[in-house]
Amino acid sequence: MNNLLPPRLEVCFSPALLHLYDTTDATVVIIDVFRATSTITAALANGAQRVIPTASVADAIALGASIPNCITAGERDGKIADGLQHGNSPSEYPREFIAGKALVLTTTNGTRLLHMVKGAKNIIIGSFLNVDAVASYLTAVGGNVVLACSSWKDRFNLEDTLFAGAIVKRIGDQYNINCDSARTAEVLYEQASLIGNIEFLKNSTHYLRLSAYGLEHDMEYCAQENLHPVVPILSGGELIAHVPIAVTHR
Amino acid sequence: MNNLLPPRLEVCFSPALLHLYDTTDATVVIIDVFRATSTITAALANGAQRVIPTASVADAIALGASIPNCITAGERDGKIADGLQHGNSPSEYPREFIAGKALVLTTTNGTRLLHMVKGAKNIIIGSFLNVDAVASYLTAVGGNVVLACSSWKDRFNLEDTLFAGAIVKRIGDQYNINCDSARTAEVLYEQASLIGNIEFLKNSTHYLRLSAYGLEHDMEYCAQENLHPVVPILSGGELIAHVPIAVTHR
Repeated sequence: MNNLLPPRLEVCFSPALLHLYDTTDATVVIIDVFRATSTITAALANGAQRVIPTASVADAIALGASIPNCITAGERDGKIADGLQHGNSPSEYPREFIAGKALVLTTTNGTRLLHMVKGAKNIIIGSFLNVDAVASYLTAVGGNVVLACSSWKDRFNLEDTLFAGAIVKRIGDQYNINCDSARTAEVLYEQASLIGNIEFLKNSTHYLRLSAYGLEHDMEYCAQENLHPVVPILSGGELIAHVPIAVTHR
Repeated sequence: MNNLLPPRLEVCFSPALLHLYDTTDATVVIIDVFRATSTITAALANGAQRVIPTASVADAIALGASIPNCITAGERDGKIADGLQHGNSPSEYPREFIAGKALVLTTTNGTRLLHMVKGAKNIIIGSFLNVDAVASYLTAVGGNVVLACSSWKDRFNLEDTLFAGAIVKRIGDQYNINCDSARTAEVLYEQASLIGNIEFLKNSTHYLRLSAYGLEHDMEYCAQENLHPVVPILSGGELIAHVPIAVTHR
C-alpha cells in the first residue's frame, strides 16, 4: 500500500455512470437529497430502529407483511405508491410516530442506487440534514470515497451534486481529487453558499417537479444543514444509525 | 405544433447518458474542446475541403488509402495513433498545409460521439474557437438543441461543459431550459469568465493529462473564443464548413 498518496475522492453524477468508478473497498455515500436520503436520515435520527430499502414496491409490500412493528413507505414519481402506507417526506416521520419502528422504504432513485453499489467497504447515506456528520465519518474511517448521486432517472441533478460539493468543500483538501465532477460540485456549492441552498435550487428540475405537488416546504426542510447529526450505514441490507467508535468503546 | 413554447435546450454530459435525450429533429452540437472539435473547426476555417470523422484507426487508414489529396490523423490517449500521419492538434493544420485537402480524423472521444447521434435535424461541431458562430447558427436554424459533451471515456469533463455553458449564457434565454446540466454549465461559465477559460480549466483532469505530454500551448489555443468563425456541419458523413443562407442566396 502506498501511504504517500492521500485517499481518492470522486463524485459520480448518475447511476448510469457508476460503472466508471471503482467502489471496491471505498466508502460510498448515497445521495438523494429530494428526498429519500433526507427521509432516511430524519427517520433514524428520530429513533427509527432501522430502515430497510427495497428496489420495488412489491418487495416493500411483502416485507411489510412479514416484519412486526413496521411501516411501509415509498413513492413513484413523487406520489405514494399503490399498496404502501406512507410517502417519502421527512415530515412524515417525527419521533412520536417512528421511534422504535422499522421503516420499509422504496423510492424512484435513491433506494435503487443503494442496491447497485458493489464491493464497497461501507455504504452510508448523505443529505444536507447530516452533512457534517457524514464529513466527519469519512475522514475518521479513512480510505477512498465515492459520492454517488441518485440523480433523476439517471439524469444529472442539481441538488445531489450540491450536497457532493458540500462534502468536497468540507474535507476535499484531505483527498487526492482528480475528478472534474468533484470540482464542479464544489463550484456549485460555493455559489449556493452566497444565497442559501434552497434559493440556489429553486430553478432545478426536481424543485419544479415537486413544487407542482405542493412540496416546497419539504424541500426547504431537506436543504437545511445539520438538523440530524446521524450517519445511516448499510449493514446486512438494512440502514441503521452508525454509532461512533468513541462511544462504543467508552 | 405548439408555437407558444420556445424550443428546448439541453446539455448531455456524457455519451453514456445520450440515450436519455431526444435528439430527433434537434440540432445536436458535438463538443470535444480538448481537442477534436477545436481541431476540426481550425482545419475547416483554414480551408480544409472536408473532415471525415471515423470511429476507428483502421477505418481512418483504409479511407486515407482511397481518397486523393488526403491527410490521415488521429489520437488514442493523447498520442498519434499507429498507422496515422498526424495528431489531433489544431496547430498541425495551418492554411498552408491543410487548404484544399481532406482530413480523415479519428479521436478517443469526439468522433465516437459523432457516430452515436441518431435522428438529428443537424449535427454541428462546437468549440470555443467558433462559439459565437455556433450560437448564431442555433438561433437562426431554430428548433430543439442538445449540446453533447464528448467527455473522457464517458466521464464528465470540465472543458466540454464549460463550452456548453458558454452557449447557454449567450442564447439560453431564447429556449425552454428544464435541464440541471444546462444550469450547471452556465454557473461554471460565469465563474470561468471571472478569471478566463484557460485559468479555470487548469485543474481539470484533461488539462493535467495533456500537460504531461507538453500540450499546454494547445490547450491555451483551444480555450480562446472566436478565432475561427465557421460552423462545421455533418453532411453525408463528412464535416464541411456551413455556408450561411444569406451568403448562398446573394
